[in-house]
Amino acid sequence: MVDVAVICGSASDEAVAEKVFAKLQEHGVSYDYQVISAHRDPERLDGYVKGSDARVFIAIAGLSAALPGVVASKTERPVIGVPVSGKLMGLDALLSIVQMPKGVPVACVGVDNGENAALLAVRILGAGRA
Amino acid sequence: MVDVAVICGSASDEAVAEKVFAKLQEHGVSYDYQVISAHRDPERLDGYVKGSDARVFIAIAGLSAALPGVVASKTERPVIGVPVSGKLMGLDALLSIVQMPKGVPVACVGVDNGENAALLAVRILGAGRA
Amino acid sequence: MVDVAVICGSASDEAVAEKVFAKLQEHGVSYDYQVISAHRDPERLDGYVKGSDARVFIAIAGLSAALPGVVASKTERPVIGVPVSGKLMGLDALLSIVQMPKGVPVACVGVDNGENAALLAVRILGAGRA
Amino acid sequence: MVDVAVICGSASDEAVAEKVFAKLQEHGVSYDYQVISAHRDPERLDGYVKGSDARVFIAIAGLSAALPGVVASKTERPVIGVPVSGKLMGLDALLSIVQMPKGVPVACVGVDNGENAALLAVRILGAGRA
Amino acid sequence: MVDVAVICGSASDEAVAEKVFAKLQEHGVSYDYQVISAHRDPERLDGYVKGSDARVFIAIAGLSAALPGVVASKTERPVIGVPVSGKLMGLDALLSIVQMPKGVPVACVGVDNGENAALLAVRILGAGRA
Amino acid sequence: MVDVAVICGSASDEAVAEKVFAKLQEHGVSYDYQVISAHRDPERLDGYVKGSDARVFIAIAGLSAALPGVVASKTERPVIGVPVSGKLMGLDALLSIVQMPKGVPVACVGVDNGENAALLAVRILGAGRA
Amino acid sequence: MVDVAVICGSASDEAVAEKVFAKLQEHGVSYDYQVISAHRDPERLDGYVKGSDARVFIAIAGLSAALPGVVASKTERPVIGVPVSGKLMGLDALLSIVQMPKGVPVACVGVDNGENAALLAVRILGAGRA
Amino acid sequence: MVDVAVICGSASDEAVAEKVFAKLQEHGVSYDYQVISAHRDPERLDGYVKGSDARVFIAIAGLSAALPGVVASKTERPVIGVPVSGKLMGLDALLSIVQMPKGVPVACVGVDNGENAALLAVRILGAGRA
Repeated sequence: MVDVAVICGSASDEAVAEKVFAKLQEHGVSYDYQVISAHRDPERLDGYVKGSDARVFIAIAGLSAALPGVVASKTERPVIGVPVSGKLMGLDALLSIVQMPKGVPVACVGVDNGENAALLAVRILGAGRA
Repeated sequence: MVDVAVICGSASDEAVAEKVFAKLQEHGVSYDYQVISAHRDPERLDGYVKGSDARVFIAIAGLSAALPGVVASKTERPVIGVPVSGKLMGLDALLSIVQMPKGVPVACVGVDNGENAALLAVRILGAGRA
Repeated sequence: MVDVAVICGSASDEAVAEKVFAKLQEHGVSYDYQVISAHRDPERLDGYVKGSDARVFIAIAGLSAALPGVVASKTERPVIGVPVSGKLMGLDALLSIVQMPKGVPVACVGVDNGENAALLAVRILGAGRA
Repeated sequence: MVDVAVICGSASDEAVAEKVFAKLQEHGVSYDYQVISAHRDPERLDGYVKGSDARVFIAIAGLSAALPGVVASKTERPVIGVPVSGKLMGLDALLSIVQMPKGVPVACVGVDNGENAALLAVRILGAGRA
Repeated sequence: MVDVAVICGSASDEAVAEKVFAKLQEHGVSYDYQVISAHRDPERLDGYVKGSDARVFIAIAGLSAALPGVVASKTERPVIGVPVSGKLMGLDALLSIVQMPKGVPVACVGVDNGENAALLAVRILGAGRA
Repeated sequence: MVDVAVICGSASDEAVAEKVFAKLQEHGVSYDYQVISAHRDPERLDGYVKGSDARVFIAIAGLSAALPGVVASKTERPVIGVPVSGKLMGLDALLSIVQMPKGVPVACVGVDNGENAALLAVRILGAGRA
Repeated sequence: MVDVAVICGSASDEAVAEKVFAKLQEHGVSYDYQVISAHRDPERLDGYVKGSDARVFIAIAGLSAALPGVVASKTERPVIGVPVSGKLMGLDALLSIVQMPKGVPVACVGVDNGENAALLAVRILGAGRA
Repeated sequence: MVDVAVICGSASDEAVAEKVFAKLQEHGVSYDYQVISAHRDPERLDGYVKGSDARVFIAIAGLSAALPGVVASKTERPVIGVPVSGKLMGLDALLSIVQMPKGVPVACVGVDNGENAALLAVRILGAGRA
């Protein structure tokens, strides 16, 4: 069992994921890591999320960043979304992640801000323990 | 069998869908219509898309409009996405639909522009027949 | 003791807060509610946050929405921020809430999306219990 | 006869066109390629589009990217538009291509996303064959 | 012979055209008026522009406002473009009109600012006379 | 006497001015060139504009680009404004130049598009001669 | 002699000016009020600013809001600029006012925020007295 | 006692602070300098602002730039805010600083424009002396 499941939508998002790992390690939080595209590999994503016993998910994605929302639609655990910058400065990913429809909440952090995603996960894990 | 499958992400998007229906009817194109949220009802969406024999999909959604991209990830047929305006003038839905990652194409039309989605479907159906 | 502390930056944000209350009640989650401006009443905000035993904070604010970040700087519990729309469609509040510096995480949800703030709190409370 | 006609508005858009060619070749789709500015060479564009027997058009353009819309006004075949990034990150070309008036549909893909333009063409060609 | 040719891309742009007429009349400038869509009626536009002896063109359009640029590609006379506001506040039309490629200049005025289009035409006519 | 007066708001805008000069020379149009800030040297600007016999003004400026509007307020001749890109991609200068109040028209061209400013001046000079 | 000179660029900005007056009166600050367009009435503006003995200027303007910058170029006193919302939500005026070139500072407050302009003036007057 | 207190939200903002120092020195204005994060070190910020006898504050911050507003909530002296550019070109910091709620004024200058912050402080100090 791990505390946090970290999922990147693309291998090109790994620089942001590295920041997540560093912060989680610093706080002694265990995690699992996968690269799975919500768009290109929906079945594998479905299997991974449903099979995971992580208490918090961190989903990292750029462009039309559907990953965090799709993860949130497959679990009742909290999902943190990290928008990754690209040709439109990450505004596309930011709006895609934060403007979720009613009923499927995602916790969005700042563009490329892997550190805060990890720290938010740490707070959430602590809230449970309290 | 129908030519076009029209899917709204929410019942509140139906005003845009009505414009699609009117134009499809005008061109004698048959269609099926469903309201299915990509985020709130992913299993039903999966079943519907995979079970459909439509030759073109039109997906209509607002906010973090994941619907067109998710549909495109479940079929090899062309998918047309229509961004619906809301608190951010539809810019959120527009960027979510148009900025798809490489490998999963979506044909985006203008904000609330159901007419053009239908007319694009008509052209696509014609391109096949040619 | 309450599960969630809901804070509005201004009485004019209460329409969004009502959506939070409705969803929290629906899920049987207890909450406390305050209207405290981060800018106009910093001392009272400080006292309230430090004195609260809530496990999750929801901070609702428009314009230069400093409230969620200031709350997050005064507690180690998770803080959810809700941007409220105004003259700039809520883009000002959205960027103010989501673009937090490294070290002080805030979980941002969509513009005026009180429902999702409540549902994210419910998930976070659940993650703790699991 | 070719399957797809690829038109760039300017020789400076060729890097995006190269991505289109690579994907079309990968799928065994034949294509013709031209550089014709909608603004600087309207007569030649008119002649080319009307004389072409391509089943799908891909029009690549930056700035005030009128090319895809002008092509769509001269043919009944499907037209895919690819916005090219420049001083305004491609937002100018994106809005110019996607916000077409009612009656003249263009299928817009993401900024500089030549791969998806090609893949959308492949899907459209397949929809015809089905 | 007229001094100015005023062209709207759509009958729905006429409110802006009325402001142009009022100012031109105030300055005793003669004008001709047409509603011709660059996208839906390209042949008629071509004939009208090439057959006109107007010394200045004013082209009024919303959305993907190709009209001013297309007019400028068919004449060597000065072309003034007026972006018309719509679902995206006129930002789409503004960028479409102002971001013309090198070689085909358009004189863009403010969103819905028919008055200034007319006054700019008056100045241009005066510059010629001087 | 010169045909065109070219004014830069700052010496740092000269790269754009060079494009103007090249095109004007290509068309055999005479010009005068000055660097005068509307904000830092308003008296000198006033004297220069009022003393000039140029038939067209081209004003090049970045940031809060007041220069073209101020020039237009001091002459009845046509004024062309060129927004220069900077930290905000030139969007600040573009909006400052194009969104003029009623009564003081400025002809805005694209960001950094000195070529089109020159070509627009050429057309305006020709319109007078016609 | 007055403490503050309040200048609107247009009579249509008076609703914002009213908020300024109310706050200044509340703090017992004397003021003078004028409506003078920087673009349409530059001479009168010049005379007014140079002849005024006010210790602080508040300039209120929409669109391409050159007024605050022009005032700042004609006095060594502090100038506060208030952007007024219009067709582009006040983003045009906001960027025009805040993005001043080096050497001519303007103190920008929020869109339509006459109250804060007045309160900033009160603070500035107090800083002088201290 | 110093004339101006300069506060950076992060050591990474010091390049902008250097511009402030240079201009203040040029005008013979004394200043004190601190790096204090509004979010990460709120207590220290509180102590510093309340203990300072500076007549004007300059607060420099990027991202969700709460610093200027928080400083303004702890003093009655004028506060100048300088937005620092980052992944979103400084638009996030600009909106966070300029869109303050009624009652807590901040004087915003342009993105990274440390020079104008210093010059505005010089004017404010002069207004007091006048």
